[in-house]
Amino acid sequence: MPTDLRFGLDRRVTLSDPLHLESGARLARVEVGYETYGTLDPDGGNAILICHALTGNQHVAGADPRTGRPGWWERMVGPGKPIDPARHFIVAANVLGGCSGSSGPASVDPATGRPYGMTFPVITVRDMVRAQAALLDHLGIATLAAVVGGSMGGMQALDWAVAYPQRVRAVVAIATAARHSAQNIAYHEVGRQAIMADPNWRGGDYQIDAPPVAGLAVARMAAHITYLSEAGLTAKFGRRLQDRDAVSFGFDADFQVESYLRHQGLSFVERFDANSYLYITRATDYFDLAAPHDGRLAAAFAHTATRFAVVAFDSDWLYPTAEARRIVRALNAANARVSFVELASPHGHDAFLLDSPDLNRVVDGFLRAGE
Amino acid sequence: MPTDLRFGLDRRVTLSDPLHLESGARLARVEVGYETYGTLDPDGGNAILICHALTGNQHVAGADPRTGRPGWWERMVGPGKPIDPARHFIVAANVLGGCSGSSGPASVDPATGRPYGMTFPVITVRDMVRAQAALLDHLGIATLAAVVGGSMGGMQALDWAVAYPQRVRAVVAIATAARHSAQNIAYHEVGRQAIMADPNWRGGDYQIDAPPVAGLAVARMAAHITYLSEAGLTAKFGRRLQDRDAVSFGFDADFQVESYLRHQGLSFVERFDANSYLYITRATDYFDLAAPHDGRLAAAFAHTATRFAVVAFDSDWLYPTAEARRIVRALNAANARVSFVELASPHGHDAFLLDSPDLNRVVDGFLRAGE
Repeated sequence: MPTDLRFGLDRRVTLSDPLHLESGARLARVEVGYETYGTLDPDGGNAILICHALTGNQHVAGADPRTGRPGWWERMVGPGKPIDPARHFIVAANVLGGCSGSSGPASVDPATGRPYGMTFPVITVRDMVRAQAALLDHLGIATLAAVVGGSMGGMQALDWAVAYPQRVRAVVAIATAARHSAQNIAYHEVGRQAIMADPNWRGGDYQIDAPPVAGLAVARMAAHITYLSEAGLTAKFGRRLQDRDAVSFGFDADFQVESYLRHQGLSFVERFDANSYLYITRATDYFDLAAPHDGRLAAAFAHTATRFAVVAFDSDWLYPTAEARRIVRALNAANARVSFVELASPHGHDAFLLDSPDLNRVVDGFLRAGE
Repeated sequence: MPTDLRFGLDRRVTLSDPLHLESGARLARVEVGYETYGTLDPDGGNAILICHALTGNQHVAGADPRTGRPGWWERMVGPGKPIDPARHFIVAANVLGGCSGSSGPASVDPATGRPYGMTFPVITVRDMVRAQAALLDHLGIATLAAVVGGSMGGMQALDWAVAYPQRVRAVVAIATAARHSAQNIAYHEVGRQAIMADPNWRGGDYQIDAPPVAGLAVARMAAHITYLSEAGLTAKFGRRLQDRDAVSFGFDADFQVESYLRHQGLSFVERFDANSYLYITRATDYFDLAAPHDGRLAAAFAHTATRFAVVAFDSDWLYPTAEARRIVRALNAANARVSFVELASPHGHDAFLLDSPDLNRVVDGFLRAGE
């Protein structure tokens, strides 16, 4: 097969058409950062789309060329893994609104020659999915063997089956929900307020060399706690002290958990744009697949021919098992083919990113059953 | 009985002696803001101390003269209530480190004539208890019929039995823990970082007319979510919109839960000092009754003659029932007299402040059994 420049690591494309957004706005020029692994079958039947979570990116199984960090899901995607470039053609794209190659608030508005900032239109999970569909058109992929994602990636995966039921044979939705709960929204709002309270934010028009890092770090710290379980935090840190034998009677990071959280905040601001964080959290807050159907989630999946695997982790309190069961009940009511499993893990929401042989077994079995 | 100026609403006393703190520091001049309700029996046997939570104050059953807000525990304390001024002599004091009458970082340092700010010594729950004991000396109260408190107030109540076992006949510890967990510390650290990230904080030396309100509001918002249960938030707000029929595709408070949280943040900063918030959260993070005993909590209560009532709420995830059971197990191991109850409530941690006939029945029965 001759070299096709559309395929490979760290690609970027400008979509050929404007994107019409759920808000009614129109994005004239949309770039999508993405990468692919493996080889597309002649019949195009082996394509799998991986959708990333809130602060993820397209570098699923290869190092991020900007940060040098390894792919964020190499435990799931790679040679000998459930999603394997030897068998699958794997596509992963940065979400619309993101900050690692796809159009977002940090992108330059062609109309002004300056970054959009808060003039970027508010986007939704559906808009992210539409941008991905346009990318697949560009890549020549009519139908996906599967869409796979965890957390916000799971929302996209579910929404794919709703928005493009003819283009998705299977969905794997992990540690996710079909809507954002009041508590989910509340935590995101805290993060947004932390960013907007930072004077460096300047209504979104921050200087490139003076972004609102303090506010963004606080937002990340608050969010990070929701990714871990109470028991997991206790096991990992408990009340252990950081590099000292006794408390300092001060405001240093006496406790390991404080030091860890501060590090999470500080390292995050090096790799993420504050306005992107605002837009992407907003997109997930708006997510509610049942809303167009007067709250009847089953109606969103009516007549679907897609197969679904829904996976929850028992210690995930961000998107708890009850939300997964709600999805499964709706799929059952819609007469869809669905398998559901709740996995045991002490790691809370982040379990889907960590070593989980059970998760790999579930995904592998589900995908093979459709091949 | 002649009017005793020590007793009544909205009192303040300067302690006669310096306070030696757990850190080794010494506070030369300590003021305590407090109020009393009811009449002290001639034998002094009917005194009950109420301890307030993180951001509470001494205005338990009477309006706060500064804010006009009603007493924060009028459901529990007042005529015909379990703690009744007709039967009890009730004392409530603002904690050391607080900002409604007791010495704290906003107080003037007599050595400099300026507010302490971050030169105020770091205090602990034990230091709060010692200041309360000094207040009781001033009031002529040798022994308490009971110490009663919820949340951080429950920590003080438990610590009273450890620090002054001869002075406490009964302890009622509600919605509390004998130590701060890693998750508890993590949330407090987020709040502290939000305050310290506010440029108006200025290392604690903020102008009286320009305090770090943005950071403090974010801290309050993050904390407030932990006071409510996920189910409670869903029942109260769900995904309902605020004064609109459709989402705005913007960053206004589209959702009721956002509007509510923002209001919680904004109203808090009007009544609370940011540095006090730092000091009091630190005190609770340091709280661990088992620490001086190599982690054996039972040893803290060895040979206690105090009676204990421990109350947890099933939806409280800040200080979950497991932490209450840990206290009860330790008290049992110490051969103490303890009753334990887990109450059902949808309201999470804040349940102890809300209407709870069950809680009132438990407290009433427990107190009467000792009279």
